[in-house]
Amino acid sequence: MTMKNQSSQAENRKAQMERQNKEITETLSHIKNKILVMSGKGGVGKSSFASNLAVSLAGKGFSTGLLDVDLHGPSIAGMMGVKGLLDVNEDQQVIPKAVGDHLKVVSMQSLMKDPDQAVIWRGPAKTGIIRQFIADVRWETLDFLIVDSPPGTGDEPLSVAQTITGAKAVIVTTPQDVALADVRKSINFCRTVNLEIVGLVENMGPFACPCCGETVELFKSRGGQVTAENMGVTFLGTLPFDPQVVKACDEGTPIAAGGHTGPFVNALDQVVRAIVSSL
Amino acid sequence: MTMKNQSSQAENRKAQMERQNKEITETLSHIKNKILVMSGKGGVGKSSFASNLAVSLAGKGFSTGLLDVDLHGPSIAGMMGVKGLLDVNEDQQVIPKAVGDHLKVVSMQSLMKDPDQAVIWRGPAKTGIIRQFIADVRWETLDFLIVDSPPGTGDEPLSVAQTITGAKAVIVTTPQDVALADVRKSINFCRTVNLEIVGLVENMGPFACPCCGETVELFKSRGGQVTAENMGVTFLGTLPFDPQVVKACDEGTPIAAGGHTGPFVNALDQVVRAIVSSL
Repeated sequence: MTMKNQSSQAENRKAQMERQNKEITETLSHIKNKILVMSGKGGVGKSSFASNLAVSLAGKGFSTGLLDVDLHGPSIAGMMGVKGLLDVNEDQQVIPKAVGDHLKVVSMQSLMKDPDQAVIWRGPAKTGIIRQFIADVRWETLDFLIVDSPPGTGDEPLSVAQTITGAKAVIVTTPQDVALADVRKSINFCRTVNLEIVGLVENMGPFACPCCGETVELFKSRGGQVTAENMGVTFLGTLPFDPQVVKACDEGTPIAAGGHTGPFVNALDQVVRAIVSSL
Repeated sequence: MTMKNQSSQAENRKAQMERQNKEITETLSHIKNKILVMSGKGGVGKSSFASNLAVSLAGKGFSTGLLDVDLHGPSIAGMMGVKGLLDVNEDQQVIPKAVGDHLKVVSMQSLMKDPDQAVIWRGPAKTGIIRQFIADVRWETLDFLIVDSPPGTGDEPLSVAQTITGAKAVIVTTPQDVALADVRKSINFCRTVNLEIVGLVENMGPFACPCCGETVELFKSRGGQVTAENMGVTFLGTLPFDPQVVKACDEGTPIAAGGHTGPFVNALDQVVRAIVSSL
């Protein structure tokens, strides 16, 4: 390759990046509040919380979008009962799926032909696809965009945080020490990339045996609250462990979607109110 | 930069890669069985299983190494009660920590000064650090090297699978549908990169209420077994959910380390025997 070709290629890339930056700014300009749901490690119920948060906000009448940008384990589509590929308009923009009156959903999974296929993308390719994905969705006007961000503190959450400017983070954890070590990393990650933290939610808290009613601490207790206090982060509340929450997500209808009552739904409502009032 | 400089830089990189390949081959040549403990998503108890598997093998008299290559959430050091930084010999090789008679442990965390600091590395840098980390440990002769591999199907597990040639995979999951979608991706990932699969372990299975003894399926049941059968992968067994396992890991002494009995330890023993006899 000649030097001339190299420099004209670089200019093309630069022009493309600038066009994409404009698209991202345009897409995000109609969205009032952008919340990244994050976790230091996977399996703490981040996607389940993101779904229930979005459903709960929509249930309160807020116009809400739910975006899943986890390239390797996108699970929002299944949890929200969204099937099939998404529609694309004549400008090649992705049209979100409407779920009920005030909620729209977009998941990476809805763009993949075979949801069981492993996506093996190297770092730079991932940043590109995340940026394009955020730029290309036609949300229209939203009160809230809830983003189910990839777990950890690597390339993917970094790309999400850098692309969605003005976003704030809600960090999800479970109470045990091993998860909390990762939460401290997450908090430091947010501070490093100047991402404001709304607060910390402790998921998979106390479990009440459905047979004898006895409360069991499956993953210990209060670790999230203590960590939040130690790190100077708002503690948003504890959500109890409830196998019905797991079952509802597997069935494609988050437990917040209505008809359900009980400790989990009440605790979720408190957390959602705390988030709304802090914005 | 001149063309000449560029090509001499490329030659230096090539020479460095070749030297590193030799070091990796030398390091791995003394290890009989290399097992990558993998999961499609985090939080299924992958690190806890890897620790308990290593401790159990060492308890059976096998000379065992346990290596944590999760850059973003290394948890093996805490689970194994290994504190402080690792020693390095005059050849700049890392000396593993001995834990008991037959077990040696190396964790990424032991190389970090501040374990709470988020590591924000871009893709190519991660591949480099993973390769170097695998090359630089002085294990001596081992019957088993258990590798706690990063979750998902991205850069990091790919780098691990490509660097540790001749390794075989054990995939850990929980029984609910949302986790199983990721497991199918993991199985396809192993097949894409030609990594032989020993089998699938279902973690966080049935939970017996310590108060009334009633069994509760926290994350549904039998999903792992059915997925293994459908995908043509060996099913290695179900490990029951036990809060004592969480507690033991948090305290730095995996439950397999001795003195414990009960359903979890019995089920683990069956799984370990199934792995050993399949190699």
